Amino acid sequence: MTKTSAGRFFEDYIVGDVITHAVPRTVKMGERALYHALYPARHALHSSDMFAQACGLPFSPLDDLVTFHTVFGKTVPDISLNAVANLGYAEGRWITPLWPGDTITATSEVIGVKENSNGTSGVVWVRTTGRNQHGDMLLTYVRWVMVRKRGSGPAPSTVVPDLQKAVNVADLVIPRGLDFSGYDFALAGEPHRLGNYTVGEVIDHVDGVTVEEAEHMLATRLWQNTAKVHFDATNRADGKRLIYGGHVMSLARALSFNGLANAQMIVALNGGGHANPCFAGDTVRAWSEVLEIAETSAPGIGAIRLRLVATKGQAGLLRGADGKYDPDVLLDLDYWALMPV
Amino acid sequence: MTKTSAGRFFEDYIVGDVITHAVPRTVKMGERALYHALYPARHALHSSDMFAQACGLPFSPLDDLVTFHTVFGKTVPDISLNAVANLGYAEGRWITPLWPGDTITATSEVIGVKENSNGTSGVVWVRTTGRNQHGDMLLTYVRWVMVRKRGSGPAPSTVVPDLQKAVNVADLVIPRGLDFSGYDFALAGEPHRLGNYTVGEVIDHVDGVTVEEAEHMLATRLWQNTAKVHFDATNRADGKRLIYGGHVMSLARALSFNGLANAQMIVALNGGGHANPCFAGDTVRAWSEVLEIAETSAPGIGAIRLRLVATKGQAGLLRGADGKYDPDVLLDLDYWALMPV
Amino acid sequence: MTKTSAGRFFEDYIVGDVITHAVPRTVKMGERALYHALYPARHALHSSDMFAQACGLPFSPLDDLVTFHTVFGKTVPDISLNAVANLGYAEGRWITPLWPGDTITATSEVIGVKENSNGTSGVVWVRTTGRNQHGDMLLTYVRWVMVRKRGSGPAPSTVVPDLQKAVNVADLVIPRGLDFSGYDFALAGEPHRLGNYTVGEVIDHVDGVTVEEAEHMLATRLWQNTAKVHFDATNRADGKRLIYGGHVMSLARALSFNGLANAQMIVALNGGGHANPCFAGDTVRAWSEVLEIAETSAPGIGAIRLRLVATKGQAGLLRGADGKYDPDVLLDLDYWALMPV
Repeated sequence: MTKTSAGRFFEDYIVGDVITHAVPRTVKMGERALYHALYPARHALHSSDMFAQACGLPFSPLDDLVTFHTVFGKTVPDISLNAVANLGYAEGRWITPLWPGDTITATSEVIGVKENSNGTSGVVWVRTTGRNQHGDMLLTYVRWVMVRKRGSGPAPSTVVPDLQKAVNVADLVIPRGLDFSGYDFALAGEPHRLGNYTVGEVIDHVDGVTVEEAEHMLATRLWQNTAKVHFDATNRADGKRLIYGGHVMSLARALSFNGLANAQMIVALNGGGHANPCFAGDTVRAWSEVLEIAETSAPGIGAIRLRLVATKGQAGLLRGADGKYDPDVLLDLDYWALMPV
Repeated sequence: MTKTSAGRFFEDYIVGDVITHAVPRTVKMGERALYHALYPARHALHSSDMFAQACGLPFSPLDDLVTFHTVFGKTVPDISLNAVANLGYAEGRWITPLWPGDTITATSEVIGVKENSNGTSGVVWVRTTGRNQHGDMLLTYVRWVMVRKRGSGPAPSTVVPDLQKAVNVADLVIPRGLDFSGYDFALAGEPHRLGNYTVGEVIDHVDGVTVEEAEHMLATRLWQNTAKVHFDATNRADGKRLIYGGHVMSLARALSFNGLANAQMIVALNGGGHANPCFAGDTVRAWSEVLEIAETSAPGIGAIRLRLVATKGQAGLLRGADGKYDPDVLLDLDYWALMPV
Repeated sequence: MTKTSAGRFFEDYIVGDVITHAVPRTVKMGERALYHALYPARHALHSSDMFAQACGLPFSPLDDLVTFHTVFGKTVPDISLNAVANLGYAEGRWITPLWPGDTITATSEVIGVKENSNGTSGVVWVRTTGRNQHGDMLLTYVRWVMVRKRGSGPAPSTVVPDLQKAVNVADLVIPRGLDFSGYDFALAGEPHRLGNYTVGEVIDHVDGVTVEEAEHMLATRLWQNTAKVHFDATNRADGKRLIYGGHVMSLARALSFNGLANAQMIVALNGGGHANPCFAGDTVRAWSEVLEIAETSAPGIGAIRLRLVATKGQAGLLRGADGKYDPDVLLDLDYWALMPV
């Protein structure tokens, strides 16, 4: 009975170690079709080869979150199988678009460890990098999780990485060839360009989606995410299956089309947290807040930094008077997207 | 909060206006696989490249209703977001097959408006046209919907288009190269050719499918249909999600394989209505009535005009003594298909 | 009402007859993506073109069970529409991998009939063969089912085929070019090679998946399996839909990654039975027993014969003291897979 892996425990993470994640994955148009079936995704650059070509790309790339989910899924058996909590993300940058036919591999470098005062768990920071079959970086991001300790040995030396609060505009990578100077706002679905948004503006994305068990399990399996809490109803005392946080990310991002149809590509993940668990039957809504607006040197392309909040409740509400997330809030994400100026 | 669109109201439709629908969509083999997962589709021409090639086509086209659903989905934000009811279809014609890799765009011309006597809503007729990346017409059809009025302004001049009761046989477009002279009935699944059907014949398609929430939402999202009644369980007082009428169309058409396996391609939509709403848990069955039989000039190819009825009840029952649809009837569709003579 | 087929009855099967199954099917990358969404499949050879190329293949083939399910689905209207029970499998061999773009056709030869003593049903044995568009055999297997008799005519002469208890190692077909001499165990996900397994060893695959109605219906439709018990909740008195036994096969095989990540390709189906029905809401787990280990003449490639058991209960438990399957056991499958030595 020793052929299966029990996963890594806190003691197994040594700062500087690089973990090669298993099971490379080739993604093609089937994954794209499924993405459109699973999420109400309508951003034109990810929907139409013609639209993408008019924006200087060879054809329509897979959704940026497909890259994220696939890379994340690969890390689960090595990083979060024994995780107590998924604590945060930082310094996420999309470097190369994901094209149909690409094969994704992933590695993670351990960049920090800090044992908890209870001595039974600790926080592990990893910098995960996904690459395509040419070895080009697709995506890199830092994630930290709380992991159970196997034994009662001494605590390792604490290393806490110094992480940027947000990715600098100068570090955003704009896909080669991307050009919004001839951007077709009518086909994209909304007339709003970067200059129409103001910092502090809150956008209610209006629509809601009630989530079913079959949907989130199809999605989570598609990304080869093996965390049993998502699939096994006998795993929790209440018989509920915890919905993969990334499923909520994609739902919220897709819902944000309604008001942010021109926030076409996600290029950085500044931070984010899964505020409350999401379960089947929940009706997920989304709202965004404009955090920052920036120019880039690419033709016609600006950058917009957004807070994207998924909620079961009303738009605009994030935290209570006590500073804690409102119980209806599911996700609080901070990202940079590209938008025509 | 003004970045999202509230959709068009009755006053916004001016006869002669042409609306460009947003978000072009490239469809490939992923959409085809999903179509086969969502519906019990078995028509050989849409299932096998070899069978399609033996019928003179370069390879297997996507199901004709994929064209319909994708084009229809594009129109929702502009035509039916504030619709009270989807009233009917007419003069639908498939002009060019949908090939994997095609990008679909859609426009609608307003061809009629008629305010209701209550002064709070009106009927809008549009002729919608879907095109591929070469600008070729894929599909054109007329649809009319009842739309809410925004205000209390005066009624526009009434324009009611003069619509054909059915598409003329001479106007049916047979895909270039299609040839049924060497048609393989064994591989197609049934021996019945056009001459085996008689006008007035009723065919009970026997099988039933019980519908789940996850299925109709996957389908409706795949067509980028944004109508919130299909996705948001909080939208109706009874907590039900209304199933997209086109989902029932595809279910019924796929079920009709059993008895109409050789009605290979849909080439015209003469009319149709969604008689009663369909909800998850309903078991959908189908029956057909042969309305008309016709020859065409294409090799080995005839045309069969069919009434296709989706029902939760027994085959053959359509309307009660009062002329109203039986409460079990979900869909009443009138279409032309191509069949080997 | 005579256009639909009532299916074949026991009297319709004549030993020596070859039945051509209808509806050829082209499968591509969409089917692969759906396979990964429906099952927690992670075997690297079926996940990554790069991994497959490093093993000597041109690219990643579709999962071996996609071949099985698609071929099986084609046989349903001719073999099991009136089946009372699916009794067993034997002599299954995968001959050629299934590549994206292949078109599958299937035929079955009747190789045995035996009327039951009650005179109302009988057992039919067929040898089913799936072929690709080049006429190459993809898969061949024997299956026997109990089928209802139409009338009360005399029993046919009994013919019971002499079936092998297991496929001989010498008869296993190793895909052309397959070479495990440079096999990357890190990317494959586990370090265990053939030599690490011992006959009699039992592996608990640990994970469980709770099954939803939408999932098994999507899968079963994807294989164009038309058996109404899987789709129509009104078909049984208890309102349950019986899950296609092949769905449980694929679930169990995918779960077996955890402990058998290097059992890369299924090359033979020695036998198997669906011990108990599976319904939505069941949490499916799996365990394997190593039955036999063998060398092959192909570079770096060995063969492992495995019993794969799907269960709702604990690992290792198969039959009770009475010799009957434990009520929790769903599937008992005996197969050969290829594994690096």
